[in-house]
Amino acid sequence: MIEPRVLKGFRDFLPDQEAERQRIMNLLGRAFGANGFVPIDTPILEYTEILLGKGGGDTDKQIYRFEDQGGRDVAMRYDLTVPFARFMAAHLHELYLPFKRFHMGKAFRGENTQRGRYREFVQCDFDIVGTTSASADFEIVLMIDRAFRTMGVDGVRVHFAHRGVFNALLESLAITEGADEVLRIVDKLRKIGEQKVRDQLTELIGSDPAEKVLTLVSASGTNAEILATMKSLVPGAAEHTDRIEQILTAAEALGLADRLALDPSITRGLDYYTGIVFETFLVDLPAIGSVCSGGRYDNLAGLYTKEQLPGVGASIGLDRLMAGLEELGLSALDVRAADAIVLCLDAGLMAHYHAVAEQLRAAGLRVEVFPDQKKLGQQFSFAEKKGIPAAILCGEAEHAVGAVNVRDLTTRTNTDGISVETAIDVVRGICGAGK
Amino acid sequence: MIEPRVLKGFRDFLPDQEAERQRIMNLLGRAFGANGFVPIDTPILEYTEILLGKGGGDTDKQIYRFEDQGGRDVAMRYDLTVPFARFMAAHLHELYLPFKRFHMGKAFRGENTQRGRYREFVQCDFDIVGTTSASADFEIVLMIDRAFRTMGVDGVRVHFAHRGVFNALLESLAITEGADEVLRIVDKLRKIGEQKVRDQLTELIGSDPAEKVLTLVSASGTNAEILATMKSLVPGAAEHTDRIEQILTAAEALGLADRLALDPSITRGLDYYTGIVFETFLVDLPAIGSVCSGGRYDNLAGLYTKEQLPGVGASIGLDRLMAGLEELGLSALDVRAADAIVLCLDAGLMAHYHAVAEQLRAAGLRVEVFPDQKKLGQQFSFAEKKGIPAAILCGEAEHAVGAVNVRDLTTRTNTDGISVETAIDVVRGICGAGK
Repeated sequence: MIEPRVLKGFRDFLPDQEAERQRIMNLLGRAFGANGFVPIDTPILEYTEILLGKGGGDTDKQIYRFEDQGGRDVAMRYDLTVPFARFMAAHLHELYLPFKRFHMGKAFRGENTQRGRYREFVQCDFDIVGTTSASADFEIVLMIDRAFRTMGVDGVRVHFAHRGVFNALLESLAITEGADEVLRIVDKLRKIGEQKVRDQLTELIGSDPAEKVLTLVSASGTNAEILATMKSLVPGAAEHTDRIEQILTAAEALGLADRLALDPSITRGLDYYTGIVFETFLVDLPAIGSVCSGGRYDNLAGLYTKEQLPGVGASIGLDRLMAGLEELGLSALDVRAADAIVLCLDAGLMAHYHAVAEQLRAAGLRVEVFPDQKKLGQQFSFAEKKGIPAAILCGEAEHAVGAVNVRDLTTRTNTDGISVETAIDVVRGICGAGK
Repeated sequence: MIEPRVLKGFRDFLPDQEAERQRIMNLLGRAFGANGFVPIDTPILEYTEILLGKGGGDTDKQIYRFEDQGGRDVAMRYDLTVPFARFMAAHLHELYLPFKRFHMGKAFRGENTQRGRYREFVQCDFDIVGTTSASADFEIVLMIDRAFRTMGVDGVRVHFAHRGVFNALLESLAITEGADEVLRIVDKLRKIGEQKVRDQLTELIGSDPAEKVLTLVSASGTNAEILATMKSLVPGAAEHTDRIEQILTAAEALGLADRLALDPSITRGLDYYTGIVFETFLVDLPAIGSVCSGGRYDNLAGLYTKEQLPGVGASIGLDRLMAGLEELGLSALDVRAADAIVLCLDAGLMAHYHAVAEQLRAAGLRVEVFPDQKKLGQQFSFAEKKGIPAAILCGEAEHAVGAVNVRDLTTRTNTDGISVETAIDVVRGICGAGK
């Protein structure tokens, strides 16, 4: 006998969880569709050089990488961004720009499974590629907001900053070599606190520059006040502060002002980003961290094509999101698997039971047929476990006169000797009442 | 520069194809849900011993198998049946029986990529586990029929036979050792023809037995006539011919008789099946072969649990199905990516364009906002490529008086100087007319 275990960091999805995941993915898909984003998909398995660069030089141990049957060096995708870059380079001539896509799919990383991280996880990425406009930056913010509102989450706050402002400040301080390290230190602000960041920055770039960097990243107040701080601190970044202003103005015009927070402490560790960067927090659940992050980049697919492809996008981690929704009571778990069940009182009436079920289905109801002539108690208990609120009972006597009995499984009351047409109405009443 | 190629047998899905795949998966999910089937998911990666048995002894070269970072022998799932067996063994105590699940997901086989086979493919499996009833057998047939009708395919024919009848015939002919080989030869009937099958069978089991096997598997006529042949040829299989009769009777009662064909030539190569077996053909496209196959089995999860789990199920290969639907003209390709596009006449009005789009979206329309102030011709051409039928135009002059212009991109006619509320009606008219 083989133990039916799954790999560490991998999970089965039981019906309630999987139905909930599909519900969320459908909601997200519809939200993206409302803005003209179109879906794509790419393979789970790619050439390693595509995912990690030529030679796969500094192979990340977190990547599932192996040699396939044909001796090819292959790897499982570890995010949806790199495959998207490859996709754009490969299909540029078949597409139109700006190209707005969303992509929901599994990705794989053999990382430490502590803190609710999984080795198989579902990402939902959306990007607008082929435009440098503020309009696209703003649309991503708008999209994030609606995506969460579609799922019933009203308390969403998008925190954003501009990488260009940060870089301009460092430049004005003549910091070039240590810039990456400064970013890394600032990124820890929330975790290690202002004093430790001050100490580390001072050691790296000296006291005065450290103070200036801290003034920028810990600026507080209203969006307008923070923008003013930015402008006075980094006068050479007018192009970028103008961009921020445009986004804030649009947010105000669309009634989003209180859900969008200018927050210079957001830097996003990656070199990749060049323009606005953002993270998204649930007001009622700040502890789970950012549920949607992203930013603007200059060149998506430079590894694979000479075509310059600027864009802006964001990524939602579905696993963390689902945990968050459950904690907020916004999950639709324990949904009923069917509206009614046709019980089996007499196995000889099998065909009749299916025919009755089909009549109910034709009326738009979701109907289960119990297949075995078991004790009624067992059949009721089955219905309860599946969350089915109504049962249709029909024995030889009822069948002889073309009637059925309907039982409300919640109130345990019967409506007996009625036609299937009437039964449809009764079931509808039971389902409506149970909502 | 790295060439943006994908692995042989793997594919990108461009927006039209991916939207179509999601449409089909949604339709299938809804069809299954109407019968009380619930969704599950399992990991792409599993312990090799789970997928191939202990030691992975006779490793199939088609399997993607490797050692992970932790030195574990792992493999990518090559179907959804084996993971389902493991799933049932692992979660038996959390579930209820009979358990009806569907599972749509990717599977991987490094097989020959000729003849439209892919190394990454999507399966859709559905099973009823924990019952030996004819009712469940029939429900799978009913489910296949509705699944295809949901997709617009009316010409579907489910061919079925009963493995028990076949086995009983072989037993009555005292053929035990060569039974598997007989199955293999019979399975080639369609491909190599009756005479060659006769020759091979005669060589294996002798002339008289060969003739009897051929009489069974090439029986023709109405379902009732074929059933009569079965009964007279294999009188010792009453239990199984009764089961066939029950299924045929139910099919007749539900008006499915002409879509269900008793066909003793269907054997399904696998040892696995013990009861009814079936294959499904598209009447208008027989050449693509079976689009949905399956059958009844005695014991799903014997490798992982002592619990006996009989069941019945079927599997749809989504890639072949999608190719079939396209050939039948039943695909919904080239759908419009949005109902309307708000064009960019003045980048300074960016916030206003998004606000107008949001008004249209609130009315249920799917709306794109063009982000860049490009030449109108370029914007129109973009809309055309995305299949968008209506454009909203608003320059400084219109904005000043709170008006917009709507252009029907098909007829190239304008409705100018109207309010956004009126524009919504105009766009609806354009969309309705274009359907």
